[in-house]
Amino acid sequence: MALIVEKYGGTSVGSVERINAVADKVVHSRNNGDEMVVVVSAMSGETNRLLGLAGDINPEADSREVDVLVSTGEQVTIALLSMALHRRGLDARSYTGGQVHIRTDNTHGRARIVEIDDARVRRDLRKGRVVVIAGFQGVDEEGNITTLGRGGSDTTAVAMAAALGADECRIYTDVDGVYTADPRIVPDARRMEQITFEEMLELSSLGAKVLQIRSVEFAGKYKVPLRVLSSFEEGPGTLITYEESKMEQPMISGIAHNADEAKITVRDIPDRPGIASKLLGPIADAHINVDMIIQNVGTDGNTDMTFTVPRSDLVASMELLQELAVELGAKEVVGDEGMAKISVVGVGMRSHSGVASKMFAALAGEGINIQLISTSEIKISVVVEEKYMELAIRTLHKAFNLSEAAAEQ
Amino acid sequence: MALIVEKYGGTSVGSVERINAVADKVVHSRNNGDEMVVVVSAMSGETNRLLGLAGDINPEADSREVDVLVSTGEQVTIALLSMALHRRGLDARSYTGGQVHIRTDNTHGRARIVEIDDARVRRDLRKGRVVVIAGFQGVDEEGNITTLGRGGSDTTAVAMAAALGADECRIYTDVDGVYTADPRIVPDARRMEQITFEEMLELSSLGAKVLQIRSVEFAGKYKVPLRVLSSFEEGPGTLITYEESKMEQPMISGIAHNADEAKITVRDIPDRPGIASKLLGPIADAHINVDMIIQNVGTDGNTDMTFTVPRSDLVASMELLQELAVELGAKEVVGDEGMAKISVVGVGMRSHSGVASKMFAALAGEGINIQLISTSEIKISVVVEEKYMELAIRTLHKAFNLSEAAAEQ
Repeated sequence: MALIVEKYGGTSVGSVERINAVADKVVHSRNNGDEMVVVVSAMSGETNRLLGLAGDINPEADSREVDVLVSTGEQVTIALLSMALHRRGLDARSYTGGQVHIRTDNTHGRARIVEIDDARVRRDLRKGRVVVIAGFQGVDEEGNITTLGRGGSDTTAVAMAAALGADECRIYTDVDGVYTADPRIVPDARRMEQITFEEMLELSSLGAKVLQIRSVEFAGKYKVPLRVLSSFEEGPGTLITYEESKMEQPMISGIAHNADEAKITVRDIPDRPGIASKLLGPIADAHINVDMIIQNVGTDGNTDMTFTVPRSDLVASMELLQELAVELGAKEVVGDEGMAKISVVGVGMRSHSGVASKMFAALAGEGINIQLISTSEIKISVVVEEKYMELAIRTLHKAFNLSEAAAEQ
Repeated sequence: MALIVEKYGGTSVGSVERINAVADKVVHSRNNGDEMVVVVSAMSGETNRLLGLAGDINPEADSREVDVLVSTGEQVTIALLSMALHRRGLDARSYTGGQVHIRTDNTHGRARIVEIDDARVRRDLRKGRVVVIAGFQGVDEEGNITTLGRGGSDTTAVAMAAALGADECRIYTDVDGVYTADPRIVPDARRMEQITFEEMLELSSLGAKVLQIRSVEFAGKYKVPLRVLSSFEEGPGTLITYEESKMEQPMISGIAHNADEAKITVRDIPDRPGIASKLLGPIADAHINVDMIIQNVGTDGNTDMTFTVPRSDLVASMELLQELAVELGAKEVVGDEGMAKISVVGVGMRSHSGVASKMFAALAGEGINIQLISTSEIKISVVVEEKYMELAIRTLHKAFNLSEAAAEQ
């Protein structure tokens, strides 16, 4: 008998029919003899419906009250799923985040889980009950309702799995696993049977939006065996592993991309210590998320600094930087919004040289100009003009032979 | 500075526009310098929408899960109203029933309030905040969400007013007060400026469905000054009082009616001790609410027993009684569903004789035959054929001169 935590997202519970289908899946798992905890999101569309009401009443709604409002979405789903399970003869109980003491900090709208008191869940499991828990939500120290931010239901599931020491945490979603690249761009992209935790972290942070990055971090911290699979079709999905396999690792596991990039270059800044923090501090203070940062030191004592920001933050960033540039004696600030980032990720990279040169050569072979490069131990990212993005992905997918299973690479 | 608890029902908060109108009313009260606690229901239609979803998933949904589901309705309203108050510059905080520790028993769907811990509400009031509370809901000892049953928001408001020692509890509804009779039947029915608690209890239990009867009982127990008024138009409404006025009371305050009555007569039962409980016990066990009960002892040692039940329970009651009648040696069981009950209510009745004879004479004058009579200290009820109901009400309203204020009666 295993203890399984399953999580079903908004599209998986988006209608009465879908909720019934999820109930059938849970019955199937329970009939295998497993102890079951099920975490669910709001029915798809519900959160937006509620936010629409809030927007009509107060366009600058207080985040505490927004959390009170949107947390009703998951509460509806837990009740409905429990009813569906009862109808199938299972003993089930629903709980809100507060009821199972998912304690968070008080950052409304993007709270972090501080602790979980799993006593009540364990008691129900011992009684043979299926426990149905509202994802995405918790309570702060004073009992105020908080939410974990979009995608936070994944984090709830993983945190609950960690607290319970679950044998597996299954994240059901609308894709049937993690692919070597976006199948809409690369038709022969391949679903991976398994992927290491570190690779998953890089892939999800880079735009392969299968799992919320915080949930992956959480899973890694507590070594929660995590599986991504489809709630719409049968299949084993992709398992995220922590132990490095004895077998030789593939050099490259997958290719991530993010089309939502803008590039900013500050030219010819007199190069003094502290320049980077003077430029980037105000950007961070404005809650703009700076991604790649590259500095080239020139020979004339001046330096160029280039970095990327989400495209929607380009205008605000440019305004902040124009002022700073004058202050710091820089020549000019140049922004370019039509950028995309492409990354190849793989733990095998560690033991194989030549990944970077192979990557750059493949792109050069198609005449794709690389604007920025950054590397980490298991990842190489390049920024290219967005118009080349799809071509670049397909080119790299072919160059690294990703449509074949690991052995053939 | 007074402490006021206001309650707004589903139609009063049924849309964004209505919620904004409620916020304006609360601002107005707050600007008078009053401390404000606001209790709200689910937006009208929302509870039925949720119950519809439940019905689609499990027609015999578990009452615990129904409570989890429908309690989201009020939670949406408290958040939206708080946002509307913020927009108007008021500091407001919303709370679910659980968050302000409205402790109930565990009878899901019709739980009773056991205690309220008002510490959190008082703390907010001291800080100048408007406290917005979800009506209709609480939590049991184990933290399970419970609901108080339809109309339970009135009870929440009254219980909160009692716990806080509020100066007034205002129940905003879609009528502008308590009338001497249903204005749809009696065009010149008059809104009462005030009414005693006992009269209100009789009137609300008899079908003048302005306030939920449990909330009136609760108000009486704790002597909560209660005012019924309209959320759609200005006006003082009707105040429910506890002290008997020094002034002479009007003989009759108002006329209540209930068209949803059926009459059952069990004929010629051998009259032995315990007959009543033998007949009515099984009816009560079937959760059928027996109202008027009348027994006539005949001269031949046999007795007739007549009573009224809600019309929708007539068939079930008849089936139960046919069996019992054979057992008890009764001659026959006769049911009649086309009945209505009309009651005249007034504390002044105590000190005036002749109310009953005046009532019966007035009805006789119009040729209306009385089927059953029952009396209490401040009420006389008659059952008549439903087709005479409106005529009977108008006749009595005129006979007791109710369109004139008390002094002229």
